[in-house]
Amino acid sequence: MYANGVRHFIDTQDFTQKEILDIIYLSLEIKKSIKAGYNPPLLKGKTLGMIFQQSSTRTRVSFETAMEQLGGHAQYLGPGMIQLGGHETIGDTGKVLSQLIDVVMARVIEHNTVVELAKSCSIPVMNAMSDYNHPTQEIGDMCTIVENLPRGKRLEDCKVVFVGDATQVCASLAMITTKCGMNFVHYGPKGHQLQDSPSAACLEKIKKNCEEYGGTFLSTDDREAVRGADFIYTDVWYGLYESEMPKEERVRVFGDYQVNRDLMSLGNIGCKFLHCLPATRGEEVTDEVADSESSLCWDEAGNRLTAMRGLLVYLTQYQRAAEPTELQKAAAKESLEKFMADRGIQ
Amino acid sequence: MYANGVRHFIDTQDFTQKEILDIIYLSLEIKKSIKAGYNPPLLKGKTLGMIFQQSSTRTRVSFETAMEQLGGHAQYLGPGMIQLGGHETIGDTGKVLSQLIDVVMARVIEHNTVVELAKSCSIPVMNAMSDYNHPTQEIGDMCTIVENLPRGKRLEDCKVVFVGDATQVCASLAMITTKCGMNFVHYGPKGHQLQDSPSAACLEKIKKNCEEYGGTFLSTDDREAVRGADFIYTDVWYGLYESEMPKEERVRVFGDYQVNRDLMSLGNIGCKFLHCLPATRGEEVTDEVADSESSLCWDEAGNRLTAMRGLLVYLTQYQRAAEPTELQKAAAKESLEKFMADRGIQ
Amino acid sequence: MYANGVRHFIDTQDFTQKEILDIIYLSLEIKKSIKAGYNPPLLKGKTLGMIFQQSSTRTRVSFETAMEQLGGHAQYLGPGMIQLGGHETIGDTGKVLSQLIDVVMARVIEHNTVVELAKSCSIPVMNAMSDYNHPTQEIGDMCTIVENLPRGKRLEDCKVVFVGDATQVCASLAMITTKCGMNFVHYGPKGHQLQDSPSAACLEKIKKNCEEYGGTFLSTDDREAVRGADFIYTDVWYGLYESEMPKEERVRVFGDYQVNRDLMSLGNIGCKFLHCLPATRGEEVTDEVADSESSLCWDEAGNRLTAMRGLLVYLTQYQRAAEPTELQKAAAKESLEKFMADRGIQ
Repeated sequence: MYANGVRHFIDTQDFTQKEILDIIYLSLEIKKSIKAGYNPPLLKGKTLGMIFQQSSTRTRVSFETAMEQLGGHAQYLGPGMIQLGGHETIGDTGKVLSQLIDVVMARVIEHNTVVELAKSCSIPVMNAMSDYNHPTQEIGDMCTIVENLPRGKRLEDCKVVFVGDATQVCASLAMITTKCGMNFVHYGPKGHQLQDSPSAACLEKIKKNCEEYGGTFLSTDDREAVRGADFIYTDVWYGLYESEMPKEERVRVFGDYQVNRDLMSLGNIGCKFLHCLPATRGEEVTDEVADSESSLCWDEAGNRLTAMRGLLVYLTQYQRAAEPTELQKAAAKESLEKFMADRGIQ
Repeated sequence: MYANGVRHFIDTQDFTQKEILDIIYLSLEIKKSIKAGYNPPLLKGKTLGMIFQQSSTRTRVSFETAMEQLGGHAQYLGPGMIQLGGHETIGDTGKVLSQLIDVVMARVIEHNTVVELAKSCSIPVMNAMSDYNHPTQEIGDMCTIVENLPRGKRLEDCKVVFVGDATQVCASLAMITTKCGMNFVHYGPKGHQLQDSPSAACLEKIKKNCEEYGGTFLSTDDREAVRGADFIYTDVWYGLYESEMPKEERVRVFGDYQVNRDLMSLGNIGCKFLHCLPATRGEEVTDEVADSESSLCWDEAGNRLTAMRGLLVYLTQYQRAAEPTELQKAAAKESLEKFMADRGIQ
Repeated sequence: MYANGVRHFIDTQDFTQKEILDIIYLSLEIKKSIKAGYNPPLLKGKTLGMIFQQSSTRTRVSFETAMEQLGGHAQYLGPGMIQLGGHETIGDTGKVLSQLIDVVMARVIEHNTVVELAKSCSIPVMNAMSDYNHPTQEIGDMCTIVENLPRGKRLEDCKVVFVGDATQVCASLAMITTKCGMNFVHYGPKGHQLQDSPSAACLEKIKKNCEEYGGTFLSTDDREAVRGADFIYTDVWYGLYESEMPKEERVRVFGDYQVNRDLMSLGNIGCKFLHCLPATRGEEVTDEVADSESSLCWDEAGNRLTAMRGLLVYLTQYQRAAEPTELQKAAAKESLEKFMADRGIQ
């Protein structure tokens, strides 16, 4: 979405397919560059505010590392550290942060919080997961998929199957794969499919993606739909929002949807396993699969960092465009030094 | 105050008028320089410890951004992260921090805590708000006033009216404006004026300021006193310390002191609105005023950062003065590299 | 310990005497270099993850300052900020962090947590205190002892007496001093000696140290054993783990073991006082001793930073060895810039 003349990253569906592919390939190019030993200082002097309404390992660590590797800095604004929607309105907090930092990310309980924040900010706002979607995860997952395409296949030739509960990660994967023209299946129990979830509004967008980019979407509890998968993806069963589903109940509901050797064998030869993590081993995935040669989930965690770097560089483009010349900087330096010398300040 | 051979920033009243003006104009010069694209590395390699006994948005974010923009780094030491006056005395914590970092700020519940800390520290200590005063806010507010002086007026020609509860921000504004020779009015209800507040001790200092610098001070519940204001300032009604005043009670006490179109119209033409934020919209200020062309409260929030940079640079002067020459650094480098090579450490 | 091809810092007993001395002297050389004005950028671009299961002042601040002074950055991952052993196994968290940062430290409740973490990490893991030992404290304490050796004595000529409760700091001091061939005494009440503590397993290691390096170890409640001490060290009486011992009870148990003028006078002339801090003044140490000329406890706190720098540089050696050439970096830069120009990304 755009607001106050700035582009925000709230939902990948606000971007064209070309823009999304640009972000994915930019992310991979920066990864290559850093591996080769060159950390591009594209975020030099920039500050990211990281608002967390919940605890987080991967998102928090990868955002902070991304900023530092590219010459910037990230401030952790965790639960209780700043007010967001307490005595101060979200709109006012957004206006204030726009004066003090260069870009902001928010992991929020309710999607509307990050949307409201973006409406008031004149700096880019990034959605670091809400109850609706998880768009930075989408970019990282696409990086992992691109790096592990089955031999001879293009993105649009691939089938991605998400197994289990229709979490916001499921919704996000459905949106980004169909945006990229891929074939997506959600294999999950009735009552726990996307139409039943807080992400139900994504179905309309997925439909449009399929029409526009030629991919397909299927939501089913028919195990046969897993057949021919190039990538099998799963997420936890206990739900991340509202009250957690008790273990006994979730095993009853989702027990048949465990990603194990048997389920993996329905996929194509060389089918890869993905998981956004954290995993509850023994529930949605067995140790055997998570720790197998087919498991990409550790690379996927590493690509959270890949995605954050690409996204941060992409969204702050307009700020770099406004950089002054070396001569202008030298003049500013001279002027400040003269002022300090005149006042006897060292 | 001075302690252990170091100058601390606990109260602007410990500084002369010339020193205060130097800090204000230094802050504005650094702002100009950064806007022009030159971030002076005046805090290179320096570390700021940020002790917060309460949550904070503006103070925390602006301190951390200030350090990073000038080449340093800030450590967030939030509630519960370190002990301050638990098993360890404040004095001992101050002595330890003096060994590990270069400058420290503290937002404290009780003013005496930051005074005690300063007494034990051999690095500069900055008061980032107490129940008595809010001196970094003072510097930022003066930056905003200087940037928005009515045409043809000098500071000492201006009238500043603070409306509502005699918070520590009210006390601080009274002290800094009279220190700068300005005319200050607190328009607030009986029983909620400075003499009734935890900041009552400031009255003596304000009186001295008026005698020395020619400004004036008035505390009144007479609405007529607002007439001719160049700047109208307000703060929340619920109190920041002790138990919060319930909404119903505070509206009864302060209801007549809302900054709205009617009250603003008592000021001079072009009268500006200030608020330290956060604002409780609909209580101490209406949306109409807060979001108007006359409202400076967002610039004011941005000038928290302006002030932090100026203050940090000013207070660490003596540390920069002690910097070694390039040749001395090169000798140190050679010596370390030789040691490592001899031991086979890379 | 080694795991996944990486050397971890879990216990100084995993290192040879020569390695330990290398780390100590490296720490002191880097301190000298920084004092002389040269901050060696040996951790440039590196990120440290700091996992804290408990609050901490010295360890946290010194780690973060160390990273920044040497060109790197530290992320504070405090209690509740990331999960460690909740829904996600410690092993999985370790694998993920290995993808996102360069080195990790953990202050843990139970020693086994940091051991488990090291087993799963392919980046160096540092033990920042457990219920068993406190090895970063050991390196800092040895730096302080080396800087304050009695005239004409070598390390192996010195007698170090730890007084009071057999905390993990007591265990650590016993291990490092005997590793360095020194003479160690624990003077503490029966029932609160090392064999009674969670660190009991260290006794076997201390015995081996004495055999191998010629030092001595004695655990006793005989006050005469303090005689001839070059360094007297103490720690708090209330215990850092499990439920705290009530004040009345601990004074009854440890009252005779207070480090006061009387006890100090049993040491050699010029005997120095050490304390890992925080101190409960009036319990394990009197103000008179803590604030005396013989007290090294503030230098000791400063040497926490000394130790962290040395350890971080030592443990990340293999990462620096893998650095690419300037030409390789330039090629990577050119390649990234071409990609961005082709896509029209600034």
